[in-house]
Amino acid sequence: MTDVLLRGGHPWRSGAPSLPGAPIAPADVLVRDGRIDRIAPAIEAPGAQVVDVTGQLVLPGLVEAHCHLDKTLYGGPWVPHSADDTLAGRIGNDLGRREELGVPSVARIGALLARMSAAGTTHVRTHTDIDPAAGLRGVEAVREAAAASPVDVRQVAFPQHGVLTNPGTAELLEAALKSGVEAVGGLDPAGIDRDPVRHLDVVFGLAERYGTHLDLHLHDGGSLGGWELELITERTKVLGLGGRVAVSHAYALGQLDDAYLGRLIEGFAEAGVALVTGAVYSFPVPPVKRLRAAGVTVACGHDGIRDLWGPYGSGDMLERAMHVAYRSTFRRDEDIELALEAATFGGARALGLEGYGLGPGDRADLVAVPASGPAEAVVVHPARTLVMKDGVVLHN
Amino acid sequence: MTDVLLRGGHPWRSGAPSLPGAPIAPADVLVRDGRIDRIAPAIEAPGAQVVDVTGQLVLPGLVEAHCHLDKTLYGGPWVPHSADDTLAGRIGNDLGRREELGVPSVARIGALLARMSAAGTTHVRTHTDIDPAAGLRGVEAVREAAAASPVDVRQVAFPQHGVLTNPGTAELLEAALKSGVEAVGGLDPAGIDRDPVRHLDVVFGLAERYGTHLDLHLHDGGSLGGWELELITERTKVLGLGGRVAVSHAYALGQLDDAYLGRLIEGFAEAGVALVTGAVYSFPVPPVKRLRAAGVTVACGHDGIRDLWGPYGSGDMLERAMHVAYRSTFRRDEDIELALEAATFGGARALGLEGYGLGPGDRADLVAVPASGPAEAVVVHPARTLVMKDGVVLHN
Repeated sequence: MTDVLLRGGHPWRSGAPSLPGAPIAPADVLVRDGRIDRIAPAIEAPGAQVVDVTGQLVLPGLVEAHCHLDKTLYGGPWVPHSADDTLAGRIGNDLGRREELGVPSVARIGALLARMSAAGTTHVRTHTDIDPAAGLRGVEAVREAAAASPVDVRQVAFPQHGVLTNPGTAELLEAALKSGVEAVGGLDPAGIDRDPVRHLDVVFGLAERYGTHLDLHLHDGGSLGGWELELITERTKVLGLGGRVAVSHAYALGQLDDAYLGRLIEGFAEAGVALVTGAVYSFPVPPVKRLRAAGVTVACGHDGIRDLWGPYGSGDMLERAMHVAYRSTFRRDEDIELALEAATFGGARALGLEGYGLGPGDRADLVAVPASGPAEAVVVHPARTLVMKDGVVLHN
Repeated sequence: MTDVLLRGGHPWRSGAPSLPGAPIAPADVLVRDGRIDRIAPAIEAPGAQVVDVTGQLVLPGLVEAHCHLDKTLYGGPWVPHSADDTLAGRIGNDLGRREELGVPSVARIGALLARMSAAGTTHVRTHTDIDPAAGLRGVEAVREAAAASPVDVRQVAFPQHGVLTNPGTAELLEAALKSGVEAVGGLDPAGIDRDPVRHLDVVFGLAERYGTHLDLHLHDGGSLGGWELELITERTKVLGLGGRVAVSHAYALGQLDDAYLGRLIEGFAEAGVALVTGAVYSFPVPPVKRLRAAGVTVACGHDGIRDLWGPYGSGDMLERAMHVAYRSTFRRDEDIELALEAATFGGARALGLEGYGLGPGDRADLVAVPASGPAEAVVVHPARTLVMKDGVVLHN
C-alpha cells in the first residue's frame, strides 16, 4: 500500500486540542498502512502519493449515527409521499407500500451509501426494521449493500412496529443479534409499545446478554418522555452499560423545565448515556450545548432519507450538522463547532469506534473540505474535495 | 432581440392551473421581446435560439421577498460571529462593527446578487437600514450594486434601530421614499419602538403619503404580537392599503390558540395583508397551509445572509423554500408545493410585480431545474440549468 501525503491542509483537533473557534494551523498528514503515521509541518515522504489540500480543512471521517438505510428510495424516481399526518398513518403507509416499491432494495441502499461516501461519511449506524412480516430481510439487504461499499455500516435491530405489541419481534431481534447485528433498538416504550418497563426489560436484556450496543428511538414528549429517560438512565447505570447506550431524538429534552432537565443531563453524564439528534422537521432539539458542557456524548444523524416516512434528506453529514446548529440557534463559531463535533467525534464515541480521530495511529479516515474552519464547513457544507477510508483515496 | 425557444420542459402552472401534486405535461416555451409568446407542445420557431430543457421543470423567476442585502459579507472571507445571544447585543454588534468591516459594501452586495441570480432569483425585496448614523448610505450602496445586476431589486427603507427611539429616523425614511425607495418598513412597534400606535402612525402615514408598499418586521410573540397584528390589519383595511402591506416573520402566528389565530387570518384575508416567512433558526413558522387556504398571500425570504446578525444563508430560494416546507412538516407533494408557491407567485403578489407568471404575455423570467415536479425541486434544490431574465439567458 503506497503512502499518501496530504499536503498543506488544516487538520482539525489533531494532537493538542485547539481552542474552539481558533484558527487551525496548517500541517501535512502522512498516511501509512491505512493509519495516520504523522501530522507535522513540511513532512518529507519520498515515494508517497501527494494529495494537495492546501488551505483546506481536514476532518476525520463523518459519522452518520442515526439513519434508516433499509427504508430508502434514494437514487430512484421521486415517490410522492402518501401517508396522512399521524404516526399510525405513516406506519401503515410504510407497511402497505414497501412491497410495491421493492423496499428494502440493495440497489437503493447502495446508491445512498455511495452518496454518503462521496460526502465524506465513513461510518454509519442504521436502524433496520425487524418485524414478523419482514423478518431479517432488511438486515440481509443492508449487509449485502454494505459489503460492496467502503462505508463501515453498523446495524441496529429495530422494532419499528413494536416489540410487545407485535408478537414474534423479540425473537427476531435476538436472531438478528445472533447473526452479528451490532446493536439492539427500541421504540417509545410507553407511547408505542404501551408497557415501558417490559419493553426495556426486553431490549436491555438483549443488549446485556449479547454484549451489544443499545439505541432507543424516543419520540415520547414532555413528562412522559422525561420519565422514560429516567428509566433508561437508571438501567444503564445499574447494568454498567455506560458508553453502550444511546437515545435517539429525545424530543422531551427540548420541552422540560430547566431544573428537571439539569437532573436528567447529570444522569446521562453519570450513567454514560449518549444522545443522538438530527434536528428533524420542527421537532424539539435536545440542548446540545448544555449536554456537551455536562460531558454527555451528542451524536448526529439524518433519520430517514428519501423514504416512505418523508421525502427529505441528502446524505451529507455536514449539511445535517448545519440543521443541528441552525435549529440550536448557534451563531458563534465555537457553538457551531459543537454540531461538527456531533457529526464526527461524538458519533464515534456513541458508536464505540476504535482508532477514530486525527492523531498518529488513528485510522486514516479523512475528509478535506474547502472551508476556513469548522463553522464555515458546517454552514456552507461545500462539496468534499477528498475522502479517504482506511488510507485509500475514494474521492479526489 | 433573438427569439428563444425552451424545448421540452415541464412548465409549472402555465395556463390552466394543474392540480397540486399532479404531473406537469411537457410543453415548449417561446420567448419573444422579453415576454412569453406561447406555451405549447412542439412549437416551430425558425431562427429562434433553442435551449434544450427536456424533462426539466420550468418555473417563473424565484422571488426573494425578505433579505438584507446592505448588511451582507457574502463573497468575502469568513467572519466569525461576535454578538452575544440578545437582540440588543446583536444590534450593538452590528452598529459597532459595520465600519470596521466596510458594511455596506457594493462589492459584497454585488457578489450576493450574482449568487442569487445564478440560483434563479429574478426579483428581490431587501430591507435597507436607515438610521441617523448611516443615513442613506445603505440605500445608495444597494442601488449601485443593483444597477449592475440583472436582478430586479426593490428596497424597503428599514428603521433597524427604531423610529421613535432613534430621533431623525422618520425624516430619513421619508427622504429614502422621496429618492425612489419602493417601500417603507417597520420594526416591532411595541417590543423595540415602545409605542406601537405612534410607530404605526409614522410608517402607515409614509406609505399612504408616498403611495408605497409597507413591510413590517414583527418578532414580538404571543398575545403582544397578536395584538399588533390586529392593529396592522385594522389600519390596512381602513386606509384601503390591501395588497400593499406585508408582515415579515410574525412569529406570534406560530404561538396563538386556534380560535384567535383563525380570527387574525380572516382579518389578513379581508384586509389584504401578506405574510413573509423564512422559517429561520428555531423561531415559530406561521401556519402556511392554513394561511393559503384562507387566501392570504404568503411569501418567502432568507432574512440575513452571511452578515453580522448570523452566518447562515445561501441565497438559493429553492433551498429557502425547503426550510419553510421542512419546518412546516410538509411531507406531501401538494403541501411542499405551497413553499414553492411562496418563493414564486406568493412573493410576486406581495411585491406587487406586474406581468409575473408562466403565461403568454408574462415577462420571460424563467428558471429550469432538473426535477420531476415542484416537491422534488424544493426538497433536492438541484443547481439551476437555465436562468432567464426579461428574455435574456443569464445562465445555461
